Formats: sequence, C-alpha cells, structure tokens
Amino acid sequence: MPTELAEFRSTVRAVWEREVLAHIDEWEADGFFDAHALFPILARHGLLGLSHSAEDGGEGAPMEYQMAMAEELGRGNAAGVAMAVNVQMHMATPSLARFGTPELKERYLRPAIAGEQVAAIAVTEPGAGSDVAHLATKAHRDGDHWVISGQKIYITNGTQADWFCMLVRTSDEGGFRGMSQIIVPAGTEGFEVVRKLDKLGNRVSDTAELRLEDVRVPVSNTIGEAGRGFQQQMQQFVIERLSACFAAVGACEWALGRTRDYLRTRDVFGGPLAQRQYPVFRLTEASAQLELLRALNEKMALMLDAGEDITREATAGKLAAGRLIREVADLAVQYHGGMGYMEENWTARFYRDARLSSIGGGADEVMLQVLARLDGYEV
Amino acid sequence: MPTELAEFRSTVRAVWEREVLAHIDEWEADGFFDAHALFPILARHGLLGLSHSAEDGGEGAPMEYQMAMAEELGRGNAAGVAMAVNVQMHMATPSLARFGTPELKERYLRPAIAGEQVAAIAVTEPGAGSDVAHLATKAHRDGDHWVISGQKIYITNGTQADWFCMLVRTSDEGGFRGMSQIIVPAGTEGFEVVRKLDKLGNRVSDTAELRLEDVRVPVSNTIGEAGRGFQQQMQQFVIERLSACFAAVGACEWALGRTRDYLRTRDVFGGPLAQRQYPVFRLTEASAQLELLRALNEKMALMLDAGEDITREATAGKLAAGRLIREVADLAVQYHGGMGYMEENWTARFYRDARLSSIGGGADEVMLQVLARLDGYEV
Amino acid sequence: MPTELAEFRSTVRAVWEREVLAHIDEWEADGFFDAHALFPILARHGLLGLSHSAEDGGEGAPMEYQMAMAEELGRGNAAGVAMAVNVQMHMATPSLARFGTPELKERYLRPAIAGEQVAAIAVTEPGAGSDVAHLATKAHRDGDHWVISGQKIYITNGTQADWFCMLVRTSDEGGFRGMSQIIVPAGTEGFEVVRKLDKLGNRVSDTAELRLEDVRVPVSNTIGEAGRGFQQQMQQFVIERLSACFAAVGACEWALGRTRDYLRTRDVFGGPLAQRQYPVFRLTEASAQLELLRALNEKMALMLDAGEDITREATAGKLAAGRLIREVADLAVQYHGGMGYMEENWTARFYRDARLSSIGGGADEVMLQVLARLDGYEV
Amino acid sequence: MPTELAEFRSTVRAVWEREVLAHIDEWEADGFFDAHALFPILARHGLLGLSHSAEDGGEGAPMEYQMAMAEELGRGNAAGVAMAVNVQMHMATPSLARFGTPELKERYLRPAIAGEQVAAIAVTEPGAGSDVAHLATKAHRDGDHWVISGQKIYITNGTQADWFCMLVRTSDEGGFRGMSQIIVPAGTEGFEVVRKLDKLGNRVSDTAELRLEDVRVPVSNTIGEAGRGFQQQMQQFVIERLSACFAAVGACEWALGRTRDYLRTRDVFGGPLAQRQYPVFRLTEASAQLELLRALNEKMALMLDAGEDITREATAGKLAAGRLIREVADLAVQYHGGMGYMEENWTARFYRDARLSSIGGGADEVMLQVLARLDGYEV
Repeated sequence: MPTELAEFRSTVRAVWEREVLAHIDEWEADGFFDAHALFPILARHGLLGLSHSAEDGGEGAPMEYQMAMAEELGRGNAAGVAMAVNVQMHMATPSLARFGTPELKERYLRPAIAGEQVAAIAVTEPGAGSDVAHLATKAHRDGDHWVISGQKIYITNGTQADWFCMLVRTSDEGGFRGMSQIIVPAGTEGFEVVRKLDKLGNRVSDTAELRLEDVRVPVSNTIGEAGRGFQQQMQQFVIERLSACFAAVGACEWALGRTRDYLRTRDVFGGPLAQRQYPVFRLTEASAQLELLRALNEKMALMLDAGEDITREATAGKLAAGRLIREVADLAVQYHGGMGYMEENWTARFYRDARLSSIGGGADEVMLQVLARLDGYEV
Repeated sequence: MPTELAEFRSTVRAVWEREVLAHIDEWEADGFFDAHALFPILARHGLLGLSHSAEDGGEGAPMEYQMAMAEELGRGNAAGVAMAVNVQMHMATPSLARFGTPELKERYLRPAIAGEQVAAIAVTEPGAGSDVAHLATKAHRDGDHWVISGQKIYITNGTQADWFCMLVRTSDEGGFRGMSQIIVPAGTEGFEVVRKLDKLGNRVSDTAELRLEDVRVPVSNTIGEAGRGFQQQMQQFVIERLSACFAAVGACEWALGRTRDYLRTRDVFGGPLAQRQYPVFRLTEASAQLELLRALNEKMALMLDAGEDITREATAGKLAAGRLIREVADLAVQYHGGMGYMEENWTARFYRDARLSSIGGGADEVMLQVLARLDGYEV
Repeated sequence: MPTELAEFRSTVRAVWEREVLAHIDEWEADGFFDAHALFPILARHGLLGLSHSAEDGGEGAPMEYQMAMAEELGRGNAAGVAMAVNVQMHMATPSLARFGTPELKERYLRPAIAGEQVAAIAVTEPGAGSDVAHLATKAHRDGDHWVISGQKIYITNGTQADWFCMLVRTSDEGGFRGMSQIIVPAGTEGFEVVRKLDKLGNRVSDTAELRLEDVRVPVSNTIGEAGRGFQQQMQQFVIERLSACFAAVGACEWALGRTRDYLRTRDVFGGPLAQRQYPVFRLTEASAQLELLRALNEKMALMLDAGEDITREATAGKLAAGRLIREVADLAVQYHGGMGYMEENWTARFYRDARLSSIGGGADEVMLQVLARLDGYEV
Repeated sequence: MPTELAEFRSTVRAVWEREVLAHIDEWEADGFFDAHALFPILARHGLLGLSHSAEDGGEGAPMEYQMAMAEELGRGNAAGVAMAVNVQMHMATPSLARFGTPELKERYLRPAIAGEQVAAIAVTEPGAGSDVAHLATKAHRDGDHWVISGQKIYITNGTQADWFCMLVRTSDEGGFRGMSQIIVPAGTEGFEVVRKLDKLGNRVSDTAELRLEDVRVPVSNTIGEAGRGFQQQMQQFVIERLSACFAAVGACEWALGRTRDYLRTRDVFGGPLAQRQYPVFRLTEASAQLELLRALNEKMALMLDAGEDITREATAGKLAAGRLIREVADLAVQYHGGMGYMEENWTARFYRDARLSSIGGGADEVMLQVLARLDGYEV
C-alpha cells in the first residue's frame, strides 16, 4: 500500500505538471482554463472519483489517497485549477453521491467522475453571503417540475459548468427550514450566466453570477429528501472544509520550500538570508503550525475511514488552514523583498490566491460561529 | 491658519478627485498614468513644492500642510499615483534641496517643483535589495565627468522620469564608504530602461529596471559632497519614511470609513454586520492603532518644524504604518466577504497596493534593524 | 522650562528611589505599604497635586510635568505603589476638583493633595464589573442625608482610604441615569471593609471589598450635580485612562532597558543574546510601539493644556498601553529564560503586575466598545 | 480496549482528585508537596510506570493511556504536581529505561516506577541556560569512579529527589561532544542543594539549585555509553516535549471549559458574556488550535507505538503547546475581569503556572532553532 500510495503520488505529480503547470501561466493570463478539456484527462487517471464508490464510477480509495492528491495539487501555484477540481470532487458531488437516486447519479455523478460533465455548487446569494439560513432563491412546484427563480453569486466553475448542485427554498418556512438541493442543468431555459467576475486571485478559475427566472427542472432532480437540503448541504460543507485543509498543506509546504531555497541563495547584509534568525524563525513558526495541520488532516482521514463525524475537526481545520496559508503567503512575499512584489515572481499570484482561503468555503467568522456553538456558546 | 489649512485641505481634495480619482480606474487598467500631464496641474496648486523653500520655487509650508496633503492623497484608492507624487516630493528631491548647488537646483529641483520634470530615486540594485551598504553600481572619474556602470531595480517613475537621484560608488572603499549621490538624466547615452515591471499592486505606477553602461555625467551633477552619498541618502530615507507614515493615515482612515459604511448596510444573520462585535472590535483595534500613528505624525511634524532629528520616530512609524495599512486592508477584504475579493470592489486594489508598504521604502526588517541599533543592540 | 522640567524629573527620581524603591521588596512581601506615611512625603515635593490648581493646594503644573512624573514612577518595579498614587491623583480626585463645592474641596481635596488623607475611587460592584450602567448600590435621601446600601469591589487603597469617591444610584431610573458621585468617609457607621483581596500582582497595593448598610452621608457630600454622577465619572475615567498611558511609557522603557542590559551580558550559543536577531527584533517591535504611545501621550498633554477633549485618544491609548506593557513583560520574562521565571528576578513581579493593565481602569473590551461607538458602530 | 481506556481514565481522575486536588490549595500555599508520600499512591495505580516495560516494573501500556493520564493530570489547576510526575516519568527515566544496564535499572528505575524513589533530571546550568552544548559541569575519572564538580539550576523535584539523571562532561572535547549521563544519588558527599527557588508559578513544585564538589559516583552509574550523553539526552528531550504536548491539552480543555461555564452565568451589559461575540470568538480560536494540538498528540502516539521518530512533531508541538496554554491562560484571566486577577480565583494560579510552558523543557526559541535546522536552515 505505501508503495502504491507513493506511485499514485508520483503519477499525480506528473499529470499535474504536464497537464496543468505547463500551461498555468498562460491560463492565468487568459483568466480561464478549459475544464472540459482538462477534466477528462484527470479522470483517465482516476483523479476525479477518488473518493467515490466503484459503483458510481469512482475509485473508492482510502482517504490517504485524497490527502496525497490534494497535497500534489497544492504544488506549483495553480490554486485556481485545484479549486475547480475540488469543486468537482468535494463540493458539488458529495450530496449527490450520498443521497441521490441511482438515476440521478447515472445522469450527473458518473459523467462528473468521468470528467465529461463539469459540476458546480450554487449556494451563495448576493443578499445572504455566508448566511445560508437566509437564502432567497425559491422553487415552487408545478406538477413534476420545480420552477426556480432567484440569483446565485461567486459560483466557481460557473461559466462552464454543465450542472449546478443548487440550494433553494422549496417551502415557505423561514430560516434553515424547507430548503432542497436540486440539480439544475446549465442550458435550461430561464437560466443565465449574468457575468463572469474578476477576482483578486484564482484568476484562472471562472467565477460567475447566475440568474434564474422560472427555470423548470424535474422534481426528480432533487437530491435526497425535499426539505432536507439545508441539512444535506451542511454535511457537504464539512467535506468542503476538509478539502480546504488538505489543499492548504500541499500549498504551504511548497511555498515554504521555495522560500527556503530562495533564502539560501539570497546574499545580503554579508551572508545568505537563510542565516538571519528573524525571518527564519518566522518561517519556522509557520512550518510548526503546518505540522499540526498535517496531523489534523491525518486524523480526519482516519476518522472518515472509520465512519466518524468530523464536523468539529474540519471546522477548526478550515479556520487554521485559511489563516496559515495567508501567513505563509505573506511571509513568502516579505522575504523575497522587492522581487516578492513582482507578478513575474511566483509569490504575487500565491499571495493573491491565498487570500481567498479565509473567505471561500465559509469565512473564518462562520467557522468561529460553528465552533462556538459546538463549544456550547450561543452567539 | 486653521482656516487656511482647512481651505488647503479642501483644495487638495478637489484637485485629487478631479485630476486623479476621476481617472484612476482607467489608469489602473492601463498600468500607467502620465506624470508629465498630471504633475504640472498639481504644481499649479503648489502641491509638489510644499516642503521646499520659496527660493527653490516651493511653498515653505509648515509640516501640517504636508500631513494634510498626504492624508488627502491617501483617500480614494489611488495609492500608485500618490506614491509617484511622494517620490517627486520626498524621495528624489530632499537631498538635492538640502545639499545641491544653486546651479543644480536651478536645473533639476525647480523644474521638479514646477512639475515640468519627473524625478526618481535610484538606490536599489538587483544584488543588494535593502542592503544599501552593498551597492555595486560604480562611477569612476574621467576629467569633469563621472562614468557610471551598473544596474538599478524597482525604480518608481522609472520609465518616465527625466532624471534620477542615483546612489553610486565613487571610490573603491567597501561597505557604506565612498558613495555619492549623482543626478543622472534619463536620456544620457548608455542609459537604458531595460523593462517595466509588472507588480502585485500600485499598477498605475511605472516601476523600472535600469541599466547603465559607461554613462557620462558631469561631476557637477554630484549632490553635496562626493563620498558622502550614503550619509546623505540615509537622511533622505528618513524623509521617505516620514512620508510613508503620513500617507498611511489618510489611506487607513478612508478604508476604515468605507468598511464601516458597508457594515452598516450589510444585513446578514439577522441584522447589520455593524452590530457584530467581533468584526467591529477587530476594526476598532485598527482604529485605535491609527490614533497612535496619527499622534506620531503630529509629533514628527512639530519636531521637524523645530529642526529636530526624527530618525527614531520615522523609523518606528514606518514599521507601524506598513503593518497597520496591511491589517486594515486585510480586514476590509475580510469583512466585505465574497465581494471583498472582487476586483470590481475597491478592497481588492487596496489590498494589493497596501502589501507594498512593508517592503518599499525599506522593508520592515530594515526598520527593525535601524531601531535595534538605535536601542543599542548589535544585530 | 526644560531645565526646570529636567530638575523636576530628577527630584522625582530621587524621591521615588529613596522613599519607595528602597523599601519595595519588603512592602511587596508584606502585601502592604503605608500610604499615610508615604503620601505626606510625596506631597511635600508637590507630587500629589501636580495637576490640581494652586487654589486647591496643587501645583497647576503643565501636563508635561505629569508625564515626567508618571514616567519616573513607572521605573523600578513598584507598580502597586504607583497605582496607589495614581488613584489619589487621577482617579479619585478629578471630579471633586472640577465639580466639588469649595467646602467639599476644603474638606477632602486639599488634604488629599497634602497627603494627609488617602482617597479611593469606588465604582465597580460584584454584579456589574466594567458595566457601569448596571450599578446596584443605592442611596435614598433622608432629609439632609443620603442613606447608602450596597457593595463595592476591587477598590484600590480600599483598606486605608480615608474617603471614597463613590458612584451610587440616587434615583430609580435605570441604566446610566440617576447616579451621583458622593464622598463617603471610611469611618461612617454601616461602612465596612469586608476583606482585603489577594491579587496576582500589585500585591503591595491594598485592594478591598466594601459593604455599606444604611451608611448616612450628608447630601452636601455630593460631587457636582446629583443625577449627573455617571457623566461626571465618565469624564473622570478619561483622566484615569490618560494616567494609565503615562504610566505605561515609563514602565515599558525601564523594562526594555533592563532586558537589553541583560541580553548584552548573557552569553549563550556562542555569543551575547543581544546579537540574536529574533529576540532583538521582537523587543524592537515593542520599542517601536512604545514610540507611538509616547507620541500619543505628548499629543494628549498638548490637547489638555489647550482644553480639548481627549476621550478618543485616551481610550485608544489605554487599550494600546495595556497591551504593550503586557507584551513587554512577556518578552522580559521570556528572554531572561529560567531566571525570568524566578521571583528573585525583577521580571516575575513585573509580569504579574503588568497583567492588570488590560483589566483595571476599564478592560480592553470596554475600551473597544467606547471606541467602536465613537467610530459610529452600534455594538 | 476503549472500555478499559475509559475505566483507566476515570480511575486517574478519581485518584488525582482525591490525592492531589483535595490538597492542592494547601500545598500551593506551603510551596511544597511531599513526593515521597504521593508517588507510592500513584504507583499503586500503575501511574508512574505507564510507559515503562513490564520487566522494568512498568505497565507497557499503549501511548493512548499516557495521553489519557496526561489529560487528566492537566485538570484541576495542579500543574506543579503534574510537572513533578512528568519529571519522574518522562524526563528523568527514559534514558535509563532505554540505555541503562539491568543493575542500574534495578537500583534506580524500578524504585522510581514504584514511587519509592523520587527522580530528577539535571541538565541546565547557570551559565548555559538552554544551550546544552555549553555545559560546564565536569567529571574526571578516578579508577572506578567519576569525580564530578559543577552547578545545576532550575532542577524540578530538586530538594527531595533521591537521584539525578545528570548530564556532565566526561572528556575535554568541546561543544556537544564528550558528555555522559550519570546517575548521581542525592546523599553523596560533596553534593549540596544550595537553595530552593521561589518561582512565579508552579509553586508547589520544588525547584533547586545544586552544587557538586568532587562528588564521587561509580562509573557503573553511567547511563548507556560514556561520551554519548548529549545524544541520549536529545532523545530524552523529545519525550519531554511530547509530555508537554500531552499535558497542555488537558489543561487547556479544563480551563476553556471553566471559562465557558463562567461566561454563561456572568451577566453584564444586558446579557450573559457567553453571548458576546468578541470574547467567545477569541476563546473559540484557542479551542480550534487545541483541536489541532490534540490531533498532533494522537499522531505522535501512533508514531511511537509504531516505533517512528517524532522529533519534528514533538518539537513543533512543544512550541505550539506552550503558546496555546499561555493564550488560554491569558484569555481566562481577561474574561473573568477583576475576579480573574484575584488569587482566590483559579485563573491567577493557572496564569502563573502556564507562563513556564514557553521556557521550561526548552524555550520556544530552542524549539524554533531545532525546527529551523530540521527545515534545512543554518541558524
């Protein structure tokens, strides 16, 4: 197994380098990469269905394979592409895999795992931000169809997704009650990609604003139980947080390594920067924290393989991961000095990309609130 | 006087809004603004020679006018233009004003104050970064001329400057000995702008890499005493730090104000964000620190008007200012949530621009080293 | 004037060394110092009435004298005694000086300034902590007397005070309405010092819990306007915060200086610690922040001399001062290593004493709330 | 096994409460607890030899038992006693257990596990602090004896230990070469406890300064290989760091829990503090970090059970643990307000005790240096 894992890891690294890193500078400049071209290649190596069961077309691999893959995708400064893959694997499909009917999985999950369809998760709305309980997009039932109207925003893969795992209100109850997860195909009449958003970072990734006006979708597109969408999404969010933790470890390790290599060769003030105690210790503090996050990841992998609930761990981890990668990015820029501020140097993109980590996938303050409630506070 | 100061302040605000803020989005997209077009307009309102004496063509205004102007230029998210103005006023010309011969000032300072010439400061080199004692650009004397060869990098205003206040070695002594400040006109034979650099932020500002091969400049272009360039530049750096402190106050105040306005209108989790204690207190912590920095600025203004040395204050202030503006930028992004990460929102540019503040004008670690030595440490 | 100020400063230093520092270790071990013995000596040098007007028996000195005195009292690790003096000067008497009738000032202020009476401020209650609006101690009027019942806690100088500037409810209105400041002499029937509290630090200072049962005090003991006690106390709190800012500068400077001296002589890992960049830069960061706080103090002094309101500045300063002195204390312990943790070394007491600074005189969170409201937030 | 572990945990809790927590206030006031009375009781429940093999008289329990025990000992504010137990189990005996001859283990390890002898580790010296490579205590060989002279300081259990695992120079090579670990019995002629030290915290624990003048100890008291003492001690230090990580989790969890309970009942500003977002989120940040540390502990337990090297993990963990417990202690004091500063409240002792965690067992800066070298830096 360790041999197999090591082989898997080097396969991932090779695929990632050849298929993504070789093109990433160009794609970043374009502000786009073609997921319909890339995903089938990744799928051919089993990378899109790693965590999904064999009967759904996945690999059913142990969690350590996902960790390894996430770490490899964190290398090489292509966070925007890695995020798109993450959406496909950990944000848009877990509910479908867990609660979807065989027919629904056949139509949407299997092609997503095969890389033939691009998936996206559509929860956030202009008026609600991280406050999922206040979503306003509504679906009313008309015979065998949901008729959906509303807006969604900050949707990763949004301009090229074939379908959206969308959270909408399907009843008039307020708050977190009466929501459902519904698969909305992109081409449906009344569905519109309003615009592609220009972001601080992760520019290669397409982020969209969506509008739905009386979009008709079969009721059979409902994932799991109607009215249980909020609860199902909360569980899907936990997987999303987990994937953020996994991704951060690879990215931080890569960035700390590159920074160390630079400090070793950068000679100022009469010696290499790698001998200056202050920058080195600041970097080492981040390196120590990385060790803790890595341990948490390994614990979560064990827990998931054992079928245990990781809500607390993933939430604490997401918070820590977001802050750590931002700190690492900040130090990387700082200790590269003037060159660190140049877009031609890897640090600038890394810094811009990393900033998303405390906002996307639930802002730090959302993690704090979830944790506070788990700790018994009423905030 | 307070009336005059208030009038001056509103003049600056009006000029800045009309001449800069009205165009800044376009200029940022272009990655350029035309200093030869803007500077004469600013000069017409006396804004480029505020601190310079009347006999040099300046205003000889008390320091509080400079503070007021710097605060106004910090408003409105045009940091790159403000930086260019700062270079003209506080980085490239103070040595010339203080140590230059009447002829040299006539030829270079007066036109800079009039906005007819664009000035730049050229100290940093590829091999030396913040380590000024290890500069390698050399000038040897050939009759009445210096013959200069070397490289300079990260030079603000570098592609459009008419002349550079350049620090070069004019003797073979090592370390900080034997340097001189020499004015190098941009058109001189052998002088070349190698390229314009693409930066993380301050994109409107042109930053250049320069190469000099046997560039001949009259010895009379030497500012002050030959061989005293390092010491003169150290004094000029103090003014640069001061200007960074001044600039930060206006920018932070503006950004905190805009963020507050947003939190008041942003309704999530059942009420405006402005009622959520955690984000509000985090912002308030920054606001408190801003109060301290403002006080330091006012103290430095008094000290300068009284002819006192502000090295310690300006160095401590530059460190604090750089960290504060980065913190403010970070909080502004964070509390705007997803929108904070969008380039269409002011926060993204502010965040990118602010990152320079702990690198440019001497990195934080340089400030720490200067302070440590002032405190009697030998690091 | 600078000469006089310098003379004044050296007088204070000499008095403080002779009368306090020479005895502080013994007093700390006893957990007590005799204010009735010490205060007359301080008063003889004009140190208790520095800020009070000549007609009240004070010195009417410019604010810079108070700053100088506070800085001197911060030296030498006698924070508990300095706090007692602060209470006498800046916490218990400013309202009396400003709003008191001539008779009341004759009876209580003049003797306090002369060091003949020890004063204390009694606001905090067991049930309310920093939440002054929820005080429960009540006074009802009976003819020419107030009849007061309630409890007060954490009262500095509480076991030996001759009188208390006490904030009590004198009407049934809720919240911050209907309170009055009343001078309560210690010996009055029904007044009881329940116990002396054993604290983490500032052990030399006596801190008491008080109980009042039908304590009768003349209505003429009311300071200023009945029903305006809350507002008057808020103003008195501003002076208290100011004094905390002043005190911190002296204490931090002294502690940073002693730590630097130690690092210079402490030879480990092949050289003095004073050459190790990480501890030195950490200390320098504190030193830089101290420079900002010092500037704020000087600004507040100027503002007060000009009759301006310093609420914002003093509140921001108190927050920063409390955090800075704790950071300095923490670094001092850390960089003394094992010895730093020993009570025989100055660092242990300094660390224990410094911890109070973010709690006493209004906790950090109270400062944040006040500032947040000044910034327009509704938290 | 989980059942057994749960039973073990409740046994430990009961023993600790009955035998330690019931007396801790009294012992703390005395500045002493009688290890010769307590240790046999703990040993009777198998608590002193948990990690030692059955043939040495230990339990050979899996690591999770040690984690459980350490967590239980972290509860209830008796850090000083827990530290003494830690010394006995994890600091003074691991080298002996691993490298000692059967005879040496019979004479010293078995009685230590049985609680009949109190052990101590003696490395630190007045002149060297954390810099183990510069120890000066020397042993020269005289026939079958070592003759030892020197000083040791900050020795936990130092006044009542029956023997010391002492690191001394046994050759004239400099630096970390030529040291040996030697067991020095307390009663030997020439051995003297110079004094007991008065500490900021952990007052119940006796910390001593030792002097050795020509102390004769049989060469057979050498642990492992003569000349390999430094290397053996480095390994022993790793176990010490591990135990610090284990201890921190229990203590932090206990302190966060007590603070939460307090915030729930403390009503100020119109509601329980547990509903105020700022303190709650600050505490939750600590709680999240605790989750990471806990995961690291579990990882280290798995690694040790699998025979793997944990140097990196234990070093990163020690750094994080020390900082976390200090942060928790600081927050606990802060959010108890005035009461938090009182010695009658648990927070004061917890705060004083916790401060040791970034100094004892290798200061934070030593951890940073070890990690930096593991990361390939030369500082």
